[in-house]
Amino acid sequence: MATLLQQSFSVSYSYPVAFTEHLFASTQTLFVDIFPKGQPARLFFVLDEGVVAHHPGLISQIKTYVASHSSRLALVAEPMVVVGGEACKNQTEAYQQVVEATHIHGIDRHSYLVALGGGAVLDMVGFAAAISHRGIRLIRVPTTVLSQNDSGVGVKNSINAFGKKNYLGTFTPPFAVLNDFAFLQTLEERDWRSGISEAIKVALIKDLNFFEWLEQHAAALARREMEPMKEHVIRSAEHHMAHIASKDPFEFGSSRPLDFGHWAAHKLEKLSQFRIRHGEAVAIGIALDSAYSFLQGRIQEADLHRIFNLFHALGLSLYVPELQEEALLQGLKEFQEHLGGTLTIMLLEGLGRGVEVHEMDQELILKALQVLKSWENTPIFSKN
Amino acid sequence: MATLLQQSFSVSYSYPVAFTEHLFASTQTLFVDIFPKGQPARLFFVLDEGVVAHHPGLISQIKTYVASHSSRLALVAEPMVVVGGEACKNQTEAYQQVVEATHIHGIDRHSYLVALGGGAVLDMVGFAAAISHRGIRLIRVPTTVLSQNDSGVGVKNSINAFGKKNYLGTFTPPFAVLNDFAFLQTLEERDWRSGISEAIKVALIKDLNFFEWLEQHAAALARREMEPMKEHVIRSAEHHMAHIASKDPFEFGSSRPLDFGHWAAHKLEKLSQFRIRHGEAVAIGIALDSAYSFLQGRIQEADLHRIFNLFHALGLSLYVPELQEEALLQGLKEFQEHLGGTLTIMLLEGLGRGVEVHEMDQELILKALQVLKSWENTPIFSKN
Repeated sequence: MATLLQQSFSVSYSYPVAFTEHLFASTQTLFVDIFPKGQPARLFFVLDEGVVAHHPGLISQIKTYVASHSSRLALVAEPMVVVGGEACKNQTEAYQQVVEATHIHGIDRHSYLVALGGGAVLDMVGFAAAISHRGIRLIRVPTTVLSQNDSGVGVKNSINAFGKKNYLGTFTPPFAVLNDFAFLQTLEERDWRSGISEAIKVALIKDLNFFEWLEQHAAALARREMEPMKEHVIRSAEHHMAHIASKDPFEFGSSRPLDFGHWAAHKLEKLSQFRIRHGEAVAIGIALDSAYSFLQGRIQEADLHRIFNLFHALGLSLYVPELQEEALLQGLKEFQEHLGGTLTIMLLEGLGRGVEVHEMDQELILKALQVLKSWENTPIFSKN
Repeated sequence: MATLLQQSFSVSYSYPVAFTEHLFASTQTLFVDIFPKGQPARLFFVLDEGVVAHHPGLISQIKTYVASHSSRLALVAEPMVVVGGEACKNQTEAYQQVVEATHIHGIDRHSYLVALGGGAVLDMVGFAAAISHRGIRLIRVPTTVLSQNDSGVGVKNSINAFGKKNYLGTFTPPFAVLNDFAFLQTLEERDWRSGISEAIKVALIKDLNFFEWLEQHAAALARREMEPMKEHVIRSAEHHMAHIASKDPFEFGSSRPLDFGHWAAHKLEKLSQFRIRHGEAVAIGIALDSAYSFLQGRIQEADLHRIFNLFHALGLSLYVPELQEEALLQGLKEFQEHLGGTLTIMLLEGLGRGVEVHEMDQELILKALQVLKSWENTPIFSKN
């Protein structure tokens, strides 16, 4: 009685992820070379206020760069500067301003939005690009450790709504990701250090060699040496890219992004009203789930010490007063709801080896919390 | 000096497109059978006000259906009724109401929004679903000829903004499309007839056999006989599905949707302030580009007569006073801008054979317009 058809197709994506320095220097051709030949690429830049403050010459440098490649590039309007950090995802004004600019300046599906800044600005501009004209091409220029070694190479965008992080967003791959290491040099100390948490995360669940490399270079990273910073960014970005490409890029099924330690981290960010930054919260979340893995007999005590010591060498705390027992358990419940009912949590089976579990013991979580607290107050283990 | 990586992956989509009658009748299992086994599927219905007005028992029928399959289905809240037609895409209230409902009722990525109504309601609810939680699963139940034979089987959603049609939207395939023919019986005469334009469109550019079938069944379709209506819906939907799956579903490149006749139709809808409905405008747009194809020597005069006669047999006008010369040429210019600079227009090389061209002669467009006008005023050709 019913006629039943099945529609099936695949959509292919391919985009460059480049790592360089001084992207808009007059001698650089990386930027201009990503565009197809033909009519000049029509560009609209949206820049993170914080980055512009630290690089006052940036806007004029971009204009000079575009002008010197006028047969290939054109600005549709003056670059727009938006507030950075979580504020740009909380205020609907910033997002609406970008959407409105696409309308006012006639930025169509064959034009390009260039988002330059930290992860929050990339998320917000990415969302505006994804829904205007059903998708304007997006070029991301991540400027922080966190956005270069993790989120900036990914396929998500978002803004916050109803007090919920990332409530509105899409899975939309960018046209290109161009990481510029030079921006890392003007980062605040906290942002430089805490961003490394996301690299420790992938190392712990995927790559023992990388974990050992991070141990060896922790002191140099803490001293803000550029060479290990660059290498760590590229290695971490490669892991995140491989994970996305490997099975379920748009997370249709139950597959998860690389979110070891993130269930507690998300809760902690909120509990601290974002006093604690994402990377700092991730360090604590990783330490917690590592301690839990140890208490379940999944990893050795010596391995746990190595994890704690690595964070310590980078100057990252593993316990903060906001981490109250009840709130933490509530965070686990919220995470389960967010996943649609079935809990999936990454734990460790060894250094460099993650394993997914579908339940957590509340008593053991609280014991793991005590391990962090006592280690932070009375370092039982050697801290170097 | 730069490190250059390339990220590449494909995303696969597969969804059922079903055609049936009385989807929520107690004996029907099509609806309940589309959900994976396991926990009951959490559903939130959004219904078109116009459909509810014609089918006052619909909401209670849906509730009874869900209740009788309570091990497989659950309503997260009372069905929501929204205004139908273009109004629901123009008012941001309707869209915001749906987004807010997903927040209030905890509708997550593993829950389902069921949108039931005409193309505009499907577009609006589809957009809300696509961006909430980065994508809630969407089930479309198209209730009009136009949405069943064309837009409802597709991958787009949208709302209007800045006075521009479909300014905000995404390409997001649905979870399922369930067409219910019973809803067609309560359509207004104009909506029944004009929706057939989209089938004539695909027939003319792709399928001579289907065109001849439409000629043979035009009188029965005009008399509102259900059997040819059903067959025409399925054949047209199949063509639209095949086109989407065949090359570039999300229109990243320069490939176009099946939009023969649509450049003039879009302009005409706006000029008439939506007095003229989409299908009616498409009929005129097709007639115009067919006359243009004839004037360019691409099709025979006899073929043009057959096209005009088919529209006439369905009671569709081929000329309206809103179709002013200057406004029409302005519409071509706007369409070119919309495409990002390079014009691509579908013309006919014969009945059932479309061809893309990249320029149009303004003088010839105006001559084609005169052909429509004089045919409508003084039928030179036999109208049966």
